[in-house]
Amino acid sequence: MNIAVAQSGGPTCAINASLLGVIKEALRNPEINTIFGAVNGIEGVIDDHLVNLKSAIRTNEDMELLRQTPSTVLGSCRYKLPPVEENSEVYKKITDCFDRHGIKAFFYIGGNDSMDTVAKLSAYFNKNNIDIKVMGVPKTIDNDLCETDHTPGFGSAAKYVATSIQEITRDSSVYSIKSVTIVEIMGRHAGWLAASSCTLHANGEVAPHLIYLPECDFSIEKFLEDIKKKLEVYKAVIVVVSEGIDLSKLDANLRSGQTDAFGHQFLNGVGKCLEGIVKDAFSCKVRSIELNVMQRCSSHISSRTDIDEAERIGSYAVKAMMAGHTGKMMAFKRILDMPYTVVIEPVDATLVANNEKFFPKEWINNEQNNIKDEALAYFLPLIEGEQVIKMQNGLPVHYKVGNILD
Amino acid sequence: MNIAVAQSGGPTCAINASLLGVIKEALRNPEINTIFGAVNGIEGVIDDHLVNLKSAIRTNEDMELLRQTPSTVLGSCRYKLPPVEENSEVYKKITDCFDRHGIKAFFYIGGNDSMDTVAKLSAYFNKNNIDIKVMGVPKTIDNDLCETDHTPGFGSAAKYVATSIQEITRDSSVYSIKSVTIVEIMGRHAGWLAASSCTLHANGEVAPHLIYLPECDFSIEKFLEDIKKKLEVYKAVIVVVSEGIDLSKLDANLRSGQTDAFGHQFLNGVGKCLEGIVKDAFSCKVRSIELNVMQRCSSHISSRTDIDEAERIGSYAVKAMMAGHTGKMMAFKRILDMPYTVVIEPVDATLVANNEKFFPKEWINNEQNNIKDEALAYFLPLIEGEQVIKMQNGLPVHYKVGNILD
Repeated sequence: MNIAVAQSGGPTCAINASLLGVIKEALRNPEINTIFGAVNGIEGVIDDHLVNLKSAIRTNEDMELLRQTPSTVLGSCRYKLPPVEENSEVYKKITDCFDRHGIKAFFYIGGNDSMDTVAKLSAYFNKNNIDIKVMGVPKTIDNDLCETDHTPGFGSAAKYVATSIQEITRDSSVYSIKSVTIVEIMGRHAGWLAASSCTLHANGEVAPHLIYLPECDFSIEKFLEDIKKKLEVYKAVIVVVSEGIDLSKLDANLRSGQTDAFGHQFLNGVGKCLEGIVKDAFSCKVRSIELNVMQRCSSHISSRTDIDEAERIGSYAVKAMMAGHTGKMMAFKRILDMPYTVVIEPVDATLVANNEKFFPKEWINNEQNNIKDEALAYFLPLIEGEQVIKMQNGLPVHYKVGNILD
Repeated sequence: MNIAVAQSGGPTCAINASLLGVIKEALRNPEINTIFGAVNGIEGVIDDHLVNLKSAIRTNEDMELLRQTPSTVLGSCRYKLPPVEENSEVYKKITDCFDRHGIKAFFYIGGNDSMDTVAKLSAYFNKNNIDIKVMGVPKTIDNDLCETDHTPGFGSAAKYVATSIQEITRDSSVYSIKSVTIVEIMGRHAGWLAASSCTLHANGEVAPHLIYLPECDFSIEKFLEDIKKKLEVYKAVIVVVSEGIDLSKLDANLRSGQTDAFGHQFLNGVGKCLEGIVKDAFSCKVRSIELNVMQRCSSHISSRTDIDEAERIGSYAVKAMMAGHTGKMMAFKRILDMPYTVVIEPVDATLVANNEKFFPKEWINNEQNNIKDEALAYFLPLIEGEQVIKMQNGLPVHYKVGNILD
């Protein structure tokens, strides 16, 4: 039998390691012949745009580079499979592609939209007695997938974020004047990544002095009051805000101070907006920093735990498929915080699709402006360890994506 | 005799390594007793705010952590010494502080403003027959100091910038749609750091497809024409712009499209401004990324060459002082590109003060939108090698600045 694998959604540092896990386990399996990669996610299946991964990833060095290359070497898509009642044509196209190439199993590495595809496709194949298995492998830096302790990609993003905020903290403290530094972190609905910056506290840092998550109501008056209190105690206050905090209730007066006549105040994200408001409120140095896409692609400081687990969960998906599973996402179940112990198990993709897991309220402090130390036991194992990165000319070497994508 | 050392100007990854170099060489020297650190640069001398560095930095581990801690553990300042004709009082205060503590040599680690202080102070001491030596140790991520091949701090900044742009390049290439990513790099007057992103070309990357420096005239029409041409060939175009490029000649129509009624178009820096203009001009995905202060504080990916050299040049300053020099900045003189060979020599601080070194025109391509490969032999040795970073809880360990600054 042949198999196919594809990657979907936003890039991470770990999604290529999961691809490698699928490939390695397939290579170990004598029943599996050709390993196809679909280019740009499920769109590559629909358009019959497949590549032979055994030729693209041949040597040990290719595999090593794949592990340390961020983003998706197979490309990605944001395509969401329509319900079969609305468009059966696309299901037929997918089935035809798989049939044409003797593909008996499809592995989809992605977030909750991808798990929706896994659920819908496997239901379609089951209903029509088509013997093709569909398996989901999780990834997202947002860590917001249900039914799994955490998601591959998150640990590396958290490690980059905490490392950078620690360095920004040093940078902020050099002058004798008071200052406020606002760091905006990704996470539109769930605040996991912003919250994970609390890992600095484990190393004795007071920063971040304040952390705001979308899981809590946001009040600008309370926010300014919080900063005022911290400025009384600390010279350089570090504030972490999740991009998902809700500024829509901002007082019109505060808002107009930040914007043009057309009210474009959110154009630059919450960090820039809050920077303006804090500048108006306090006579001190204020700056905002957006860690931007570096949060999801900074492989040079990826978590070894994360990359190892990403590869392992990719391999496990092949084993679970061989054992007869379909329509499942591979999930981490944490057995123990210390020593950190996780097992992988298949869970129904339907339970993950179109669902979100939020940061637990019980780990947020009473003031709703920081994270309790109880969360550290959860976060710390996920950022543990560093990859040994192969370098050339002083820079990390990446897998040549051109081998697959033109 | 006792000595004092201080740090000044913007933070870098290497300025604490230079401090360590001064300390280590002083410790090796039986004639030197107390090593004072002045807090917040020359201001700490004026205010008699000194700390005893032998107590603050005692163990081998303290020294190891100092090497890997970004920013200035002694604090910094932006204070520029006035001419003695204008304010002799401040020179008297400095002399009094040095006399009170038996300080016979002062080491100032900083940029061209600091070298101005070195020049003025040493001239004052010479003129008044005061036996106190003043030595300058260079640092700046801008690499714009005259009389030296390069500056400590630059190599690490360049390594972070190139590494991040390579990762951003991977991140930009995952979707099948056309896109333009604009990365804004520090350097108000000199384009060294933006130019150094050409090091990616040494590893076979086509990106950055376009690089714009303050050393060239900037035309928005040419800029849009350049992008148009690149979009015809490449799916994801990576554009590096130095923050110092001159947008003041922007056509009023283009400008108004980006701004409120008050013309605040530069509020967000050139990257954001150009993002808006490119969005209006092309129907493709456009984003801008500011690497911000991470350029000067990302010690986790510092260049080992840079950190080693920063320590070495700090040590050399003590040796040069013991040999009788004063009013000098320590400078790198490159003997050979391959194998990379540099020597350190003292140069007159007056030649460096209030002066800037620009990126050589002959290394800019004819189109003035990228860097010639000839520049690689200059840049590559500076980003070579990685530090082994001491980690704890998955994060780099920093020297506890609280030991010195409260």
